[in-house]
Formats: sequence, structure tokens, C-alpha cells
Amino acid sequence: MPNLALIGAGRIGAIHGSNVAADPKLTLTAIVDPNRDAADALARATGAVVCSLETVLADPQVEGVIIASPTGDHLDQVRRCAAAGKAILCEKPVDLDLARARSAAMALKGARLLIGFNRRFDPRFAALKAAIDAREFGLAESLHITSHDPAAPPPAYVAASGGLFKDMAIHDFDMARWLLGEEFCQVFAAGACLVDASIGEAGDVDTAKTLLRSASGRLCAISNSRRSGYGYDQRIEAFGSAGMLRVGNLRRSAVERWGDGGAFAAPPESFFLDRYRDAYRLELAHFAQVLEGVSPKIGYADAVAALALAEAAQRSAATGLAVRL
Amino acid sequence: MPNLALIGAGRIGAIHGSNVAADPKLTLTAIVDPNRDAADALARATGAVVCSLETVLADPQVEGVIIASPTGDHLDQVRRCAAAGKAILCEKPVDLDLARARSAAMALKGARLLIGFNRRFDPRFAALKAAIDAREFGLAESLHITSHDPAAPPPAYVAASGGLFKDMAIHDFDMARWLLGEEFCQVFAAGACLVDASIGEAGDVDTAKTLLRSASGRLCAISNSRRSGYGYDQRIEAFGSAGMLRVGNLRRSAVERWGDGGAFAAPPESFFLDRYRDAYRLELAHFAQVLEGVSPKIGYADAVAALALAEAAQRSAATGLAVRL
Amino acid sequence: MPNLALIGAGRIGAIHGSNVAADPKLTLTAIVDPNRDAADALARATGAVVCSLETVLADPQVEGVIIASPTGDHLDQVRRCAAAGKAILCEKPVDLDLARARSAAMALKGARLLIGFNRRFDPRFAALKAAIDAREFGLAESLHITSHDPAAPPPAYVAASGGLFKDMAIHDFDMARWLLGEEFCQVFAAGACLVDASIGEAGDVDTAKTLLRSASGRLCAISNSRRSGYGYDQRIEAFGSAGMLRVGNLRRSAVERWGDGGAFAAPPESFFLDRYRDAYRLELAHFAQVLEGVSPKIGYADAVAALALAEAAQRSAATGLAVRL
Amino acid sequence: MPNLALIGAGRIGAIHGSNVAADPKLTLTAIVDPNRDAADALARATGAVVCSLETVLADPQVEGVIIASPTGDHLDQVRRCAAAGKAILCEKPVDLDLARARSAAMALKGARLLIGFNRRFDPRFAALKAAIDAREFGLAESLHITSHDPAAPPPAYVAASGGLFKDMAIHDFDMARWLLGEEFCQVFAAGACLVDASIGEAGDVDTAKTLLRSASGRLCAISNSRRSGYGYDQRIEAFGSAGMLRVGNLRRSAVERWGDGGAFAAPPESFFLDRYRDAYRLELAHFAQVLEGVSPKIGYADAVAALALAEAAQRSAATGLAVRL
Repeated sequence: MPNLALIGAGRIGAIHGSNVAADPKLTLTAIVDPNRDAADALARATGAVVCSLETVLADPQVEGVIIASPTGDHLDQVRRCAAAGKAILCEKPVDLDLARARSAAMALKGARLLIGFNRRFDPRFAALKAAIDAREFGLAESLHITSHDPAAPPPAYVAASGGLFKDMAIHDFDMARWLLGEEFCQVFAAGACLVDASIGEAGDVDTAKTLLRSASGRLCAISNSRRSGYGYDQRIEAFGSAGMLRVGNLRRSAVERWGDGGAFAAPPESFFLDRYRDAYRLELAHFAQVLEGVSPKIGYADAVAALALAEAAQRSAATGLAVRL
Repeated sequence: MPNLALIGAGRIGAIHGSNVAADPKLTLTAIVDPNRDAADALARATGAVVCSLETVLADPQVEGVIIASPTGDHLDQVRRCAAAGKAILCEKPVDLDLARARSAAMALKGARLLIGFNRRFDPRFAALKAAIDAREFGLAESLHITSHDPAAPPPAYVAASGGLFKDMAIHDFDMARWLLGEEFCQVFAAGACLVDASIGEAGDVDTAKTLLRSASGRLCAISNSRRSGYGYDQRIEAFGSAGMLRVGNLRRSAVERWGDGGAFAAPPESFFLDRYRDAYRLELAHFAQVLEGVSPKIGYADAVAALALAEAAQRSAATGLAVRL
Repeated sequence: MPNLALIGAGRIGAIHGSNVAADPKLTLTAIVDPNRDAADALARATGAVVCSLETVLADPQVEGVIIASPTGDHLDQVRRCAAAGKAILCEKPVDLDLARARSAAMALKGARLLIGFNRRFDPRFAALKAAIDAREFGLAESLHITSHDPAAPPPAYVAASGGLFKDMAIHDFDMARWLLGEEFCQVFAAGACLVDASIGEAGDVDTAKTLLRSASGRLCAISNSRRSGYGYDQRIEAFGSAGMLRVGNLRRSAVERWGDGGAFAAPPESFFLDRYRDAYRLELAHFAQVLEGVSPKIGYADAVAALALAEAAQRSAATGLAVRL
Repeated sequence: MPNLALIGAGRIGAIHGSNVAADPKLTLTAIVDPNRDAADALARATGAVVCSLETVLADPQVEGVIIASPTGDHLDQVRRCAAAGKAILCEKPVDLDLARARSAAMALKGARLLIGFNRRFDPRFAALKAAIDAREFGLAESLHITSHDPAAPPPAYVAASGGLFKDMAIHDFDMARWLLGEEFCQVFAAGACLVDASIGEAGDVDTAKTLLRSASGRLCAISNSRRSGYGYDQRIEAFGSAGMLRVGNLRRSAVERWGDGGAFAAPPESFFLDRYRDAYRLELAHFAQVLEGVSPKIGYADAVAALALAEAAQRSAATGLAVRL
């Protein structure tokens, strides 16, 4: 049963930690986090021990490392883990700087590295991908992705995260590339600060729409907002030459209520921990396969490509100009 | 970790067996089934050993027994397990003969016995029950329960099972009692053999509707069919004094397809193994609580009350007369 | 352009009156109602004159008469209009007494009489009927009809109307006969007074479910309530041998609202004036055809058959016994 | 009863012609169309006479003119009708050349001119507009408009029509302006020819997405396609600060079908003649008000503003650059 270490005991780290602990095929042995309280708490919950990254890297028993640290540390940790021969599951984005991310590519050739675009493992979106690949309605020609958070994060988070495009929309950029199976070469984004003025003061937008065009003319529109007012809105429509495929939101309850004011269906799942619970679990199951020698479904090139779209969108929104990739 | 034995390695037994094997808080140690092949296969899959009921009853290490044998054996096995001091999870119906079931009640007083009306543990119906109990739309005054199988069972099954009312609709009778929290005193059922003539030759109906009335005038209509043409149809509507609550079908896929012929949502789950997967798991989790001393949520009196409704409905359908309880 | 007279200037009379006035192919010339204020008001609105029934019957220019008077007057007026050679559109029920209605049948042979089961003209239910007749999912084997009013009528109305079964559910009995194209021979109904005690004091029920069985074993469950809490609930499900057809409610608005509490669709249409607006209009268009010699789609035998079901249901609910027809 | 003349007896002209003929408050007296066959046919159907535009303009009895001629003739005809003192209902777009349209504005000051952005009169979108204006979910911050035709028009139509942006998407540009009540200052569009190569040869695109941004940062994404594979797709979502409002498609039938392959709802209305039947009728009703002195709800400035967006989108799609207005 392979031993894993986890770097980062924050919100996402805790998901991965408890998923590893619950997986009968994996063992979580080590947790690394400079925040000793968080590390201790998660260690107690999972049966792992707290230690330093150096100890993890030097321990031949640790076969894989999950990197869920602050984004700024990702790339350096990926490199060190790869150098130590560990299999790696690294959270997105791999870095906030596209040039730096690109320059690391050569050194990471050959690394067993899985990038944490967890939504690809969501059973609903995976079924959509399968239907697109089966050309159920002919060639998929355009997408519409709606990806709205329920409520704005604290401004401090926004500042550290890399902003709406690199932190949040990057999931949607990866989804668009994956679903259409083609790269985009034209990016235009428009954004605004409509939700929380302090996000604007931190230099970011909280509301954005992005338009992508591939070389063959396939299109994708992405809608992002830091706040919906009705829960976590995660929907995709794929328009094909002979029809449309779509995945709607999951609901918090299956009970429908008909009263005075009409017919009420429960709101969507409240946030990503609920909505993508299965996806995180299945992502980990795939990482277990990677540990057994299977090739990672999402590699470093995917991380760089999504980051390139995010950086282009950010620049487009800032300048009002379209960006060509 | 409590040790459990399982009687019956058929379709339902296999569900319970693999659920126990997957539950980290329970151990499946023994399987009893005169069909040695089925018993061996399930034993291999779950790590249990095949043995006789006598061995199980004599083994002080076995704390609980799950009874998933043919219906005709249920009552005798319940009595023997109870006499041996075992906690019991017994599949429905507890017997096909109401008088015999009633006469056993005294002897089972004090037994730790959970009846397997698994649908009460379904998260959707449990949420409906909670909404009814919270009087979200006032007092629930009437119900409509739709419970159609996807396709008719082999005639041999029908003959042994006790027939549509005692084997299939009994779930709905229990659901109606549970949701309204009141007994029914008037039963009328009409049935026909429209699906498979051999079911009629075996003396049963394959299509039926039943109407129940409680002393306070609350009503329930139940629709049963052995075949739907569109999957497993399991829906409930509860009409209250100020509105309606309803639970629809789960779908096999979350991808909606819009094409030439319209907008297609995937069909309902194909059958009870899929539709009630969660319910069986949560039923077992409750049985684990029963092993720890918690009082069973569904007891022998519930088994008898549902059987009384089933027998009344069967008589009503056969005679064309309404039956008063 | 045929001249029509209208008997009854109440709620239903007003619908017919304004529909005739708006129909370019018909002229409303006369209104008969002992309530002079109501008659005058409707006459002003439609351009007709107020006169006596005798005048109408004696006027050779009047080709057709619409009877929307109190139920107790229907049968006598039908007979007199028929004797005078008028084409007749008579509101349901044709009478409250089944024996009397039956005994009038002979005298009405040859009358050009259309019975006002307006729901058959509803485009949605007509599409359902067409799909059933086309055997889209094989033979229709059973129906479920939900027919709940938004709110209870004044007790005075209930007393005069003939009660829930003969006044309200009679529409559903006609619908069931029409959709399945077969007579029912077994009736069981259970009712209660849960909405308004004064309805019970007037000898009626306000909540009922009825179960019908045809000779060939086809079944129909009907749910009636004088109050829903969420508008006018008019839904039908038809279960066939290979699938299900269903017609849901119309909504008051097409705008869906997603907020804090979930996704809200507007409530159903508020009541029959809105829900069956098209049906009344199309019923009148068919009456115009009857005036031109087309045979009425709904005749006196339909009126009697639905009344027989209503009377059987009323007796069943009162006695607790099933009724055989 | 005001007399109207109609210029253009083609597809749209026929809608207006028969709507006028069916409106009891309006009379269609004259039809102008160089295609004598089309003019004669519509004249026969509506009771109007065929004549020249000169006759119409010189006839003091003609109070209003409906212009449904080829787009290239609109502006000249508007000017002549305005000069003759007629009230005008002119189909969109008012011209294909923005500069020319702008230069005509001064001359048309004071004209009683209603522009045929008929979708504003659609009851569903009007209800959406009312809900937005009532700030049901706070300020509307962004829109998503889906507007896909069922199937591509003949290439000849595309060439004459002005192309996807000026002929088809112009409705959506008007809708976006109207719903948000604010002008857009930034336009980016991406298009492709994926449906029919001959459309591309004619210099147009058949698939496009457009992104609009207002000065205050409000956003709109528009999806256009000349072909859907599932009927006429006309949907709008409006995202507000506290929730979302949305209007879906109308369906061709209200009967839902559940079979082997799942639950089927009928496809959307097949095309605009069906989908916007009410809208055309209500547009005409408003034109009747304009004839009585009411100020037109959609004026020349709206025509120019929508055309400006269409021209910007067309340029953006052609150049790959964002356009600032």
C-alpha cells in the first residue's frame, strides 16, 4: 500500500488528506505545513505525522506527494519532488508566472506528475466528455461554460491566489481545452469589479466573461463571477452540428416544493467541496494508478496551456485588446 | 468490530454481503445458503466462510444476523436468531401469512430486530419525511406513490415471492404508513394481468392501483406495475394543506441531450440495486447502531402492519370488495 | 353568421358570452337569466339583448343555445331547446340525478347536443389523446389524473353544485373514459372533509381519491382536492405498455428565478378560467361546426356515463363499499 | 378604424399582413411589392388591393405603413413615408450601412416611427424585462443570450441579408441594450463558418459568439448559430447581484414522453414564425397605439444603436481585434 505525503494542510489539503485516509489502497504517512496547528490537526485526523519537506524527500518509503500548498510554492516543490523521484499530484495553478512555468518544462520531462484539474474527474463532466468524443451530436462546435462561485472570498485570498483568471477561471480554460480537444489561439476577456470593491482595490476583477476561438473556428464562452446569490453554479453546454449536450447543476436536495410562490427546486450545491466531492475522490484514485505506473491523464503541458489562456485573458481584460496565442 | 452472519446468498444477500464487507465498522464472518455455489462465490468475494445456521447460532462471536433467505424461511429464522440472542436485520416481507406473522409477535418481544424496509433509508425519501414532519406545507393530507418495476420478473419468481401486493407493493404500504404517521383502516385495490399472461396463470396480477384511507380521512393512492418501459419509476407526491412536496426519479446520467426529437433526459435508474444503493448502505449503518444498543427504527409491528395492508389489498383485488381493517 | 342565445349570465355564462362575441363566425343575440343585473351587464358587454327563454325558443333566427344555467335547470332546458329544434351546447353535469338523466335519453335522440366537457378541447390533453390513440407507447394501461382546485369554493356553491364528485370530478371521469376509450365497471372512492368543515356540514367531501377499473383491467386513479395551496393543479399521466406520456401544469410565467432558496418556477395557472381559456374557445369553435351539421364530439351518452361514474363514486365514498356498474 | 399599407409581401410581410387583417381595430387596404404574384396572393388573403408606393403615399386615408421590404430599401422608404406624414412600422435592420443610417437621423426627427425589434414584445422576454427592472435579484450585472436558428438559410438569403451580425444577431444586440438599459462600449466577436461552406464563400460566418461590455462593467455574451439541430433556440439568462432570472424555450408540445431512451420533452418551437407569433401580434397592437398618438417604444435611435453593435461585431470577427464604441 503506497505511502503518500501531503504538502499543505489548508482547505484543499484537508480534502486530499481525508480522501487518502479513507482510501483503502493508500496510506498517508506525512504532512508538511509551516502552520503547525493546521498540520497537527490534520495529522491527528488522518493518522499521519508532521514532518519537514526534507524528511519527505529523503524518505524512500514515500512514493507520492500531494502538493496543496500556496500557489507560489507549487513549482519549486514540484521540481524538488520530481528530482527525488516521487510521483506528484499538484494543485492548480502550477505557477502564476507563465514564463517561469514554461521554462521549467524541460526539467520536468519524465516526471510522474498529475495536475489537479479535478473537474475532469467529475462523473457528470466525464460523461459529457464521453458523449462529445462519441460525437453523439456530430462535432462539438462551441461551448458555454458557466462557473459562478456562491460568494466572494476574503480580499486577502484574492490577492494571494493570482486573481480570478489564474485561480478560478483556469479550471474553465482547462475544461474547454479538454472537451474540445483543440487549442485556442484567440482570447478576449472583459471583466469588472461589481461584487466587492476591495477586490478591485487589490487589482482584480470579480465578474468576467471570456471568449476563446480555436484555429479551426470552434468557440467557447466562459462566464465567471465571484458571487451568484444562489449557490455554486457549474454548468456546461456543448453545441454540436446536430444537437446540444448539457450538464446542469446538482441540487442540495431532491425534494421539490410546490407552494404559494411556485415550484421550488433546491438550490445547487453550496460550493466546490460538495459539488466536486466525487471528483476529488476519483482524481485520487487516478493518482493511485499513476503510482502503479499508469500515465497521468493531466500533465505539465496541460498546466502550462491553461495558464497561458488565463494570462491572456487577464491581459485582455486589463487592456481591452484581444490576445493572440 | 462486530461479526455478522448472512443467511441467503442470492441477489439481495449479495448486496448486504458486499455492503458489510465494505463497511470498516463491521465484519462478515459467515454465510449460510443451501445453494453451495452461491454461498461459495459470495464467501470468496467477501472473505467470509460458508457454514450452517446451527454453527452461526452457536457461535457467541456472531453478534448479528442478516436474513436474506427466501421469504418462506424468514419467520422461522428470525425466531431462532432471536432465541440465540442475535441482533437481526430481516428482509421484507417477514412472512406471507398474516395470521402466522401476528401469532409470532409475542415471542419476538424484546428481540433486537430491524425490518428491511430499506426505502426509509433512501436520502431522498428521508428528506421528504423530514419535510412532512416539519409540516413545511401544513399537515400532509394525501399521498401519491408511483412504484413501477422496469420489467416483469420470471414467472417462477412471482410464484415464490408472494405476489405483487406482498412482495412488491409492501414497500409502498410501509412508505405510506411511515410518511403519514397514521394507520390506514380502509383498503381498496384493483389489479389486472396486462404485462405477462403467465403471471396471471400463476394467480397474480402485474398491474395494480390501491387506495388507502386512514381513520382521520387521510388518503393514499399507490400505482404498481411490473413493467414500465422506461426504467425503475419511484416517485412520491405528498399533498399538504398549503402545498405539495415531491420526490422524482434519479437519472442514469446527468447529461441532457437536445436533438432532433426534443430534449432528452436520461431514463431513471434501471432498478433497485442502483436506485436504492445508498438506502441499503444506510440501512446497514443503522443496523450497526442497533448492534451498539440503539433501538431499531423499523420493528416487527411495522412488518405486521405492512403485511396486513398487503393482504387486504390482495383480497380486495381478488374480490372487488373494499376491505376494512 | 348563425345567431346564438345564452342561458345563464354567471361565471361560466360570461366566458361563453364573451367567446361568442369575439368569434367572427358567430353572433350572440340573446341572453336569458332571471338575475336581471347579471343579464344586463353581459348584454352590454356582448351587444346581445336580454329576453325570456320563451322568446328564444320561438325565434327562428336563433340557431343555437348555450346552456350555462344552474345545474338543476339543465335537463329541462335541454329538452325544451331540443324540442324547438335548436342546436345545444350544455354545460356539465347535465343533471344531478342519474335516473332522471337516463330517462331523458330517448327524448333527446336526434338532438344536436354538445356536452360541455371542455377539457377534451384543451390542446395539451388533445395532444395526449392523439398520442394515446397513436399507441406511441403501446396500449395505454392506466391513468393517473390529478385535479386539485386552488382554493375551496364558498359552502353555498358546494351545496348547489351537486358536490365534489358530480360537479368537479365529473370532468375527470369524462377524461378517463375519453382517453382510454373504454367504460369502467368498478368504482371505489374514499373522501374526507379536510379543507373546510362547512363543506362537511353541507354533506360533501373536499378531498377524495377515486379508483376506476375497466372490464379489460385498465385502471385509473383520480386525485381531487378543493384546495392545493399552489394554484390549479391539472396533470395527467398515461402509462402504456412501453412507456409513459404525461401532461404537466401550465405556468403563470415563463421566467424562472434562481435565488437563495433555490430555483423557482412560477406556480400553475390560478384557476380554470386561465387554464382552460383555449379549451372554451375551441369548444365553441366545435359548436360552430355542429351548427353547420357536424356531429357533436361529446353527446348525451357521454354526459350520462360520466354522471354514472360520479354517482357511483359518491355512493362509494359515503358507504365505504366498492360499486359495480 | 385606421387604414394601413404594407410594403413587402414576403415571409415577414405575410405575417404582418395577416395580423393586420385579423386585428378588429385595423384595416389593411394596400399592398406594395414589385413581385406581383406575392402581392396578389397576399392581397387575396387579406382583402387589400395591390398598388404602388406612390399611390400609398398620396392617399390621405392611409394612416400607417408597415415596411417589410428587402433591407436595402428600408431607409429610403422610411424617409418617404415619414415625409408623407405616415406612421411607420419598419422591420429591422433599418439599413446595412451605419454611416448612412446615422446621417438619416436628423431628417427622421419627429417621425412616428416604430422599429420592428419584435422580440421586445414577446410576453416571456417582457416578463424578464419587468423582473430585471423590478430588481428582483438586485442589479442585473450580466446576460447570456442564446440565439440559434434551426437550420441555415439558403446562401442567397445570407448574401442579401447583411450577414449574421446585421441580420440575425441584431435582435440580440437590441435585446441586450434593452434588458440592461445601458449602452455597450466594447465589442469583441469571434465567428467561423462551420455549418455551410457556401456561407463562408459569400463572405459571412454562420457560427459566432460576441462579448459586450458597458461603461459600468456590465457584460453580455451572445451565442449565435445558423443551425441548432434541435429547433429554434431562444434563451436568456440574466445574472443579478442576488440571483438569476432565466427564460427558456417554448416547446412544440406539452406532452412529455418517457420511454426506453429516457424522458423526452418536445423540441423548441421550430422557428420564429411560431416562437414569436405573440410578439408580432403585440408589436402590431403597439403600432395601433402609435397610430393613436402614443410614442413608439422602439425608435430610430434604437435601430442605429443596434446596428452600431452589429457593425462593430462584424468588424471584430473579421479582424480579430476588439472594437471600442
